[in-house]
Amino acid sequence: MSDLIVPHGKEERLIPLLLEGDELQAEIEKAKTLKQMKITSRETSDLIMMGIGAFTPLTGFMTKADWQGVCDEFTMADGTFWPIPITVSTDDEDIKEGDEIALVDEETGTTIATMQVTEKYTIDKEHECESIFTTADIEHPGVAKVMAQGTYNLAGPVKVLSESYYPEHFKGLYQRPAESRKIFEDLGWSKVAALQLRNPMHRSHEFLAKIAVEVMDGVYIHQLVGKLKAGDIPADVRLKAIDALVDNYFVEGTVVQGGYPMEMRYAGPREGLLHAVFRQNYGCSHMIIGRDHAGVGDYYGPFDAQKIFDEIPEGALKCQNLNIDWTFFCDKCGGMASMKTCPHGKDDRVLLSGTVVRKTLSEGGELDPRFSRPEVVKILQEYYQNLDDKVEIKLHGAATGDVKK
Amino acid sequence: MSDLIVPHGKEERLIPLLLEGDELQAEIEKAKTLKQMKITSRETSDLIMMGIGAFTPLTGFMTKADWQGVCDEFTMADGTFWPIPITVSTDDEDIKEGDEIALVDEETGTTIATMQVTEKYTIDKEHECESIFTTADIEHPGVAKVMAQGTYNLAGPVKVLSESYYPEHFKGLYQRPAESRKIFEDLGWSKVAALQLRNPMHRSHEFLAKIAVEVMDGVYIHQLVGKLKAGDIPADVRLKAIDALVDNYFVEGTVVQGGYPMEMRYAGPREGLLHAVFRQNYGCSHMIIGRDHAGVGDYYGPFDAQKIFDEIPEGALKCQNLNIDWTFFCDKCGGMASMKTCPHGKDDRVLLSGTVVRKTLSEGGELDPRFSRPEVVKILQEYYQNLDDKVEIKLHGAATGDVKK
Repeated sequence: MSDLIVPHGKEERLIPLLLEGDELQAEIEKAKTLKQMKITSRETSDLIMMGIGAFTPLTGFMTKADWQGVCDEFTMADGTFWPIPITVSTDDEDIKEGDEIALVDEETGTTIATMQVTEKYTIDKEHECESIFTTADIEHPGVAKVMAQGTYNLAGPVKVLSESYYPEHFKGLYQRPAESRKIFEDLGWSKVAALQLRNPMHRSHEFLAKIAVEVMDGVYIHQLVGKLKAGDIPADVRLKAIDALVDNYFVEGTVVQGGYPMEMRYAGPREGLLHAVFRQNYGCSHMIIGRDHAGVGDYYGPFDAQKIFDEIPEGALKCQNLNIDWTFFCDKCGGMASMKTCPHGKDDRVLLSGTVVRKTLSEGGELDPRFSRPEVVKILQEYYQNLDDKVEIKLHGAATGDVKK
Repeated sequence: MSDLIVPHGKEERLIPLLLEGDELQAEIEKAKTLKQMKITSRETSDLIMMGIGAFTPLTGFMTKADWQGVCDEFTMADGTFWPIPITVSTDDEDIKEGDEIALVDEETGTTIATMQVTEKYTIDKEHECESIFTTADIEHPGVAKVMAQGTYNLAGPVKVLSESYYPEHFKGLYQRPAESRKIFEDLGWSKVAALQLRNPMHRSHEFLAKIAVEVMDGVYIHQLVGKLKAGDIPADVRLKAIDALVDNYFVEGTVVQGGYPMEMRYAGPREGLLHAVFRQNYGCSHMIIGRDHAGVGDYYGPFDAQKIFDEIPEGALKCQNLNIDWTFFCDKCGGMASMKTCPHGKDDRVLLSGTVVRKTLSEGGELDPRFSRPEVVKILQEYYQNLDDKVEIKLHGAATGDVKK
């Protein structure tokens, strides 16, 4: 038997909703006969997360009672801990409770799932935004998506029919929870820390991962391959840059890489919790929470996502947070350090803003090797210098960050 | 209420055996009237460990059944987990079961404790050595002390009367478990890692401590101030060198320093377990176990002391091991790393043998700053260059390493 952490929820087993074999073929045929409802990229990626068991123990989109409980108490109607509503919306007046519908990704036209509509309800969107994002500011990219939702939410169980383009496009990286669990088991790991990544790894991220490697069995470098906001570096480039880093600076057998199809919501602390929930399903006992985890702009304090783990009820979540302070290279320390281990001053530390990094790379300049590994810099320089030519990625929407029109 | 780890043993509270106030004065007077029995420095320091509650839940020296259980099953007769026998011995034929005796440190002449002799027994010393040290080689300094013990072991409860010269000589460093627990509580710590030190801190030790600081509430740099073997650096010098390191390279409020009076036994894995047992009493939730922990010569594999924590029964010990691999500076990594995080070659790493370090320092040479901090090197240079003048420490035997004559 494995010593891996159990999946989230009372049943303590993965609950994937993807159909297989004959059952899948029959449901695909049936879906063609059902009412077709367009869904957004966020709804699509949430369905795929449910399909592969990453959102265990969810069996479909949330009810009003679930929605309310998650917003107000981090808890679904059946008592399951959950930090962010997982809902689907529509403006369609004709869809009724009791209907069976097909859910079709509006960007790729792929039928992702079928759904039994058990409840049709309205929500207070501002309440959701204030609860989840602590703001209803429409400039917040997560808020923008909630406010753009349809008038009605639909609840009910789903059968997932497709993982869309993810398995093929991110071949070798995209993983289902059952797959990462198998890899960890084969490696004999039980203490596994997940490193959430939506950017290339500079030395500060490498240091987070290495601290985890020192004290755990290994680290799961888990990249988001769902949608980001505009200006973020697309998954394809990130993937190459991270590969270069892992190949040159990590010991074989201490790192597993994986990708997951969720979209960023930029919900900061609440998203940190969601990251831990589904990392538990992927087999991770710990979730690295660094500075400004899953944040955007100035909406969250730099360590709010660490603090929230102390505020949830004890035992609500088995996956534990591994908090690490702001990290950087310090000349006096003579290596990487954090605010917790470096007693020296600002002038001894190599700190570059995102703006400076982007400007330098766009102009083909070198980044300080104390900030970023040369192997990584090379890949990012190529990306930034060819930025205008980057159209192929737009095609399927995997890696650009446009908010839906 | 504090979230600190509970002390070792069923009662989950500190059991200090040091008398205080009127009771102490009365017992000191009584001790003068009792049969005086000389005890070794190891027995003296074990008594003081019992006195201050560091050896909780021991209430005296072990019985034959305890001794046998500890040797064979890591367990005392009452089921308490314990990894190394804590015994006192004599050649005195006149001492009988039922006697009350005074235990007097043979080196300082201080009366350390009184004891009710409940059992007088003989042991198979070779069996103890093979069980505890995995060798009966008399060249092993721990074995030498066991083989030099008296013919009889005495068991029975003790009342401790003195902490000898430790509180005064190591003022500000020497601590009782109740004191370190108070400090941790005041700092709001609950996840505390102990770093065992019997040498000055070079960068490899600093790195161990800093990894712990990154992932815990703080680190307890806990120096042995009891006896060492010949050739080890005395506590006074170590203390200065460690102070210099902590002052210049750690963030205030992340490190607590302390000293404890036990003698090294050099029992490697078994001593690693004992280190965890009494660190739990000092309030530490974790014990850092690095390369060749508490080892000497080539008696133990470099990571045997990590492995043994997996071999003891689950739940036997609440204080957990925090394993860290062999650490060093690597030029390609551009900082400190370990075998677990550095994929590069031997030639990229700064590795100096103890012999080279001693030779360099004795000749007043500089150590590579990638190996040791200049502030530390300065203090060690002074020590090694004046080594011949070092006589004052011999006076009370605190810091030299002679095996008893």
